[in-house]
Amino acid sequence: MTAIDERLHDRKFVRTFFTTPTAESGADDSAKKLRSAIGLRGMQAPDVWVPDNEDATAPNMRDEGAENIAEVVADDGEEFPGEIHPRVVWHRDDPSTRYKGFQHMLEITDPENGAVENIDGFVIPEVGDIDDWKKADEFITIVENEHGLEEGSLAMSVIIESGSAELAMGKLREEMGKADNNLERLFLLVDGEVDYTKDQRAITPTGGLPEWKELRHNTSRAASAAGCISVDGPYDDIRDVDGYHERITANNAMGMLGIWSLTPGQVVEANKSPLPPEEGYWIIDADGREVELESREGVEVYSGDRIELEEEDGGYELEVGSDEIFVESEEDLADELLDLVDYVPSMDDIVDSMEEFEAAKEAGKGAIAMTRAATVEIDGVQVDVSSDRMWDEATYQALMTPVKLFQDVYENRPDQHDDLAELYSEDVVDRAMDVGN
Amino acid sequence: MTAIDERLHDRKFVRTFFTTPTAESGADDSAKKLRSAIGLRGMQAPDVWVPDNEDATAPNMRDEGAENIAEVVADDGEEFPGEIHPRVVWHRDDPSTRYKGFQHMLEITDPENGAVENIDGFVIPEVGDIDDWKKADEFITIVENEHGLEEGSLAMSVIIESGSAELAMGKLREEMGKADNNLERLFLLVDGEVDYTKDQRAITPTGGLPEWKELRHNTSRAASAAGCISVDGPYDDIRDVDGYHERITANNAMGMLGIWSLTPGQVVEANKSPLPPEEGYWIIDADGREVELESREGVEVYSGDRIELEEEDGGYELEVGSDEIFVESEEDLADELLDLVDYVPSMDDIVDSMEEFEAAKEAGKGAIAMTRAATVEIDGVQVDVSSDRMWDEATYQALMTPVKLFQDVYENRPDQHDDLAELYSEDVVDRAMDVGN
Amino acid sequence: MTAIDERLHDRKFVRTFFTTPTAESGADDSAKKLRSAIGLRGMQAPDVWVPDNEDATAPNMRDEGAENIAEVVADDGEEFPGEIHPRVVWHRDDPSTRYKGFQHMLEITDPENGAVENIDGFVIPEVGDIDDWKKADEFITIVENEHGLEEGSLAMSVIIESGSAELAMGKLREEMGKADNNLERLFLLVDGEVDYTKDQRAITPTGGLPEWKELRHNTSRAASAAGCISVDGPYDDIRDVDGYHERITANNAMGMLGIWSLTPGQVVEANKSPLPPEEGYWIIDADGREVELESREGVEVYSGDRIELEEEDGGYELEVGSDEIFVESEEDLADELLDLVDYVPSMDDIVDSMEEFEAAKEAGKGAIAMTRAATVEIDGVQVDVSSDRMWDEATYQALMTPVKLFQDVYENRPDQHDDLAELYSEDVVDRAMDVGN
Repeated sequence: MTAIDERLHDRKFVRTFFTTPTAESGADDSAKKLRSAIGLRGMQAPDVWVPDNEDATAPNMRDEGAENIAEVVADDGEEFPGEIHPRVVWHRDDPSTRYKGFQHMLEITDPENGAVENIDGFVIPEVGDIDDWKKADEFITIVENEHGLEEGSLAMSVIIESGSAELAMGKLREEMGKADNNLERLFLLVDGEVDYTKDQRAITPTGGLPEWKELRHNTSRAASAAGCISVDGPYDDIRDVDGYHERITANNAMGMLGIWSLTPGQVVEANKSPLPPEEGYWIIDADGREVELESREGVEVYSGDRIELEEEDGGYELEVGSDEIFVESEEDLADELLDLVDYVPSMDDIVDSMEEFEAAKEAGKGAIAMTRAATVEIDGVQVDVSSDRMWDEATYQALMTPVKLFQDVYENRPDQHDDLAELYSEDVVDRAMDVGN
Repeated sequence: MTAIDERLHDRKFVRTFFTTPTAESGADDSAKKLRSAIGLRGMQAPDVWVPDNEDATAPNMRDEGAENIAEVVADDGEEFPGEIHPRVVWHRDDPSTRYKGFQHMLEITDPENGAVENIDGFVIPEVGDIDDWKKADEFITIVENEHGLEEGSLAMSVIIESGSAELAMGKLREEMGKADNNLERLFLLVDGEVDYTKDQRAITPTGGLPEWKELRHNTSRAASAAGCISVDGPYDDIRDVDGYHERITANNAMGMLGIWSLTPGQVVEANKSPLPPEEGYWIIDADGREVELESREGVEVYSGDRIELEEEDGGYELEVGSDEIFVESEEDLADELLDLVDYVPSMDDIVDSMEEFEAAKEAGKGAIAMTRAATVEIDGVQVDVSSDRMWDEATYQALMTPVKLFQDVYENRPDQHDDLAELYSEDVVDRAMDVGN
Repeated sequence: MTAIDERLHDRKFVRTFFTTPTAESGADDSAKKLRSAIGLRGMQAPDVWVPDNEDATAPNMRDEGAENIAEVVADDGEEFPGEIHPRVVWHRDDPSTRYKGFQHMLEITDPENGAVENIDGFVIPEVGDIDDWKKADEFITIVENEHGLEEGSLAMSVIIESGSAELAMGKLREEMGKADNNLERLFLLVDGEVDYTKDQRAITPTGGLPEWKELRHNTSRAASAAGCISVDGPYDDIRDVDGYHERITANNAMGMLGIWSLTPGQVVEANKSPLPPEEGYWIIDADGREVELESREGVEVYSGDRIELEEEDGGYELEVGSDEIFVESEEDLADELLDLVDYVPSMDDIVDSMEEFEAAKEAGKGAIAMTRAATVEIDGVQVDVSSDRMWDEATYQALMTPVKLFQDVYENRPDQHDDLAELYSEDVVDRAMDVGN
């Protein structure tokens, strides 16, 4: 027996969910964008590719879109490095849309079309409460049966874009495993914030999307409790790479490691963002803004205007924003700075710490102190700071997540080995693959 | 069949929930405040008026209060422009209070008193888990049966002021529609933060109310999932109009478009706040504070101290708070400013965009770029900025909410037509009523 | 019948949850730390002491740890002023760990060991969904039966450190009271953020713990709805007293009044933090930072740099951060300052207000205005400010929480009477014990 909250699918992690229109009128080849997307490799190729036969494709082109998916995947699906999960039409309030989605799934997976071996599952949008999820699950079961596929072999991912779907996520543990459904096929829980905003009838003065932090927490929690993987919705402002990166960082702190990508550029950013950096670096809280310190010959230098430091008679004057603090000793100054600085470890640093803890554990210790030290320089004044953090088994396990993510990527995405080798040295890659096993 | 998550009542939106004491001792006429409130019209009149026979009225005056409600509504209820939902006493832990509430409901709706035609429903405070909600529902069913009213014709609204009631909201979809209850009568889910704070045993140093953001999200979500309407609790600081407006704006971004009002002044503010402004305007993020730009002959001018801009040799020096950025070209400067500015569209702007998208859709396009451009001036330097936003069907639907709110208000509140005509030109009103239909 | 959402145990409040390793190899006496902890008294002694036979103790020392617990509690448990709830091993995914935990519970409570009279219950870590909680409950029932204890007499507390456990908290009201379990024994719901972070697979750049605000809200809400008590997890940075205090303040505003303590110093801080201060004081919002005003002969003085005030021709210039406001009259100035200042009442102030409201209630008033006035001085300019707050029954009840906490502490912790007498005068203690009864 497998516990329901272990991730059940081949991929334990999904960083990227990239959608492509399936058919466009007016072009010589209506499947042109599909053919282009299926050729992506390396960091530009997503973990999950979603030929989008719903919102990205005009309603009157969707029958052709379903045929295009089958044709393009039959031609080039075998070589595609990620998984392929087409999105079909669906709506909790409209049986004709649901029936259309069923027909498209039948078409795409028809063995005569030659694509089904490389179709990993389907994405169902606009689901409602759990009984609506079961309708989609049942259609997929019938599709599997009609086409001679093993029951449960096609994954099902859903877009959470209604309050009822958000509530349904709390019921997954009770419903998965029941004899009358195959909901164990559930794979991705993907937030769809634009439609969710409509469903909640939310209004913002500028028309911008609300943050929906509670929705993202609930999605991540449900994924954790039901062995699925959580993915955030699209980030509309394609040119705003910093904003996209910040959204990913915020998502990761909630356990939501995947995000929708609208362009290959966003795919690259989202594939790389959750991985630890090549080089570790120190950051400082400069009056509410996080600033990276510049490493110069072993000294970490702050050169902004938000923090000022001066040695005076009998002590130091530290000014952060408009707050002035006077401290009498270098030790007190180090204490103050310790509250402001933090270290972002590199992959190498993380592997070092993991190995250090594993060695301590073998030597019979349950907890050890990990020390992190640096010389920080502000306005020419240098201060040595050093912090200890206690690690026990729980700390070790919690900090293992980026390593496990790396291992999952490395095992499943050989096409990214070159990119990873550029990011990390070969030695680091070898040790990262080895740690924890 | 109607899906449970469509709003089922006459009003699809409720902006204002205004409470009035039902009986005060010592006055010549104990019903004086009721008589005054039922005379409110236009923006001073709430969408839902709540003669409050619970907390606002002394316990020993509540029998008289129930009689007063019947008498005042019999006299003047026909002309009142909003709905009338008296609050009766109730407590999940006290059967005698519940029985008293039942008796008051019987009295208020007794056909001999002549008020029942203008009583739209009841507000039940201090509910607990869903089985407690069913007790109130059952009493209302008996009231309807005793007085020859159609079953389900009286709405039921509840005050969410306990952890058990918050959890009950997650069960509404499973319970509504069952043969043994009439919970489809549920109308408003109203947060009661003071009692909720007591129930959670929360402590703040100053005694101020916690924000309870998760409660508000969960209430809004439940309303969305169960076809009800969510309303925030009272805002105590009556003189703080800005604070009330900010709370409403924050609520609206969660889909909670209604709020309690304690005075006719708060009613006016809460009736107007969720509607789009008469004139659009640009805002700028001035080091964490949102500031409105002043429009002078087509140029949007920032004249505060938090942002400084200077043309220098070979570029521009932009200072936001204590951050300085140097950019070399006007294009780079425009890029930086684009991250800081945003536009708050007027009702006119929104209708324009809606019509533009509808025309594009008819012409067979699934998505179009909406452009917004302005000339921004800071410290005498003028810069042209321009942003595109992709609109698809989902964007269109999500941004339709303020228009739908307006349409609901216009249809149901003829007494506010004059006020709306003052806010928006007649032409805008006509087009807003037409769009989306 | 008792409603499930009333707190069912002897203690209605728990401020502190202090863990101690149960057995350490290499020491002369492996139970040394247990013997030291059980000797704690007064503010250093926790409300709940947790001999930790799980994470704090090495796996190969845990059988000895169980014996140590029995021995130390048999020797000195009678005199310990708090409750004693050992933590045993458990894991939702591992039956051998669960069986080991069962054996340790049997051992610790074996009447022959002489400890059971002073064992108040057990703490079960790593629980999963509600059926996993029932397995632990069933083992405790068997322990009670085997050892001739009354069924339900041993409390059960759980550590919430998985998404499935977080969801299980929403089901407590449905499951408690069923004939086939004794879940009414549930006492503490304790968040375990490190393991929760692992379970959610969250990643932060520095490896720091995410805030998990939604988890804390959901835990506090579940405690409120199911008659339990919520407790936050460990705060790792032991030297950071300010940070620990801030975390407690934030927790209290969510109704989470208890927190894990890792050292006697943290116990002292956590025992005192939720109690009202000895002396009331004014605070001011200095451009986003809360600063305490200094009381000098009846005048509340701000002497920082973030706010500046100057009397000018025809008015006053008030500068908060980089915002300048000009007001023409002292009245307008007082209005502006009123938005910035607030008062933190002392225990004495709170009791005064409670008594004032009780007197008004007896005189037949439902609501009264409570006035708070002060003279505030900034840059030598003095301004009189005064605010009213309406109190009704709900306000009174909500603000009673710190008093009830005090009463619970005073009744259950005679060993803290001296410390409380140092904090508050005898007269205040007497009146605080009397109010509300």
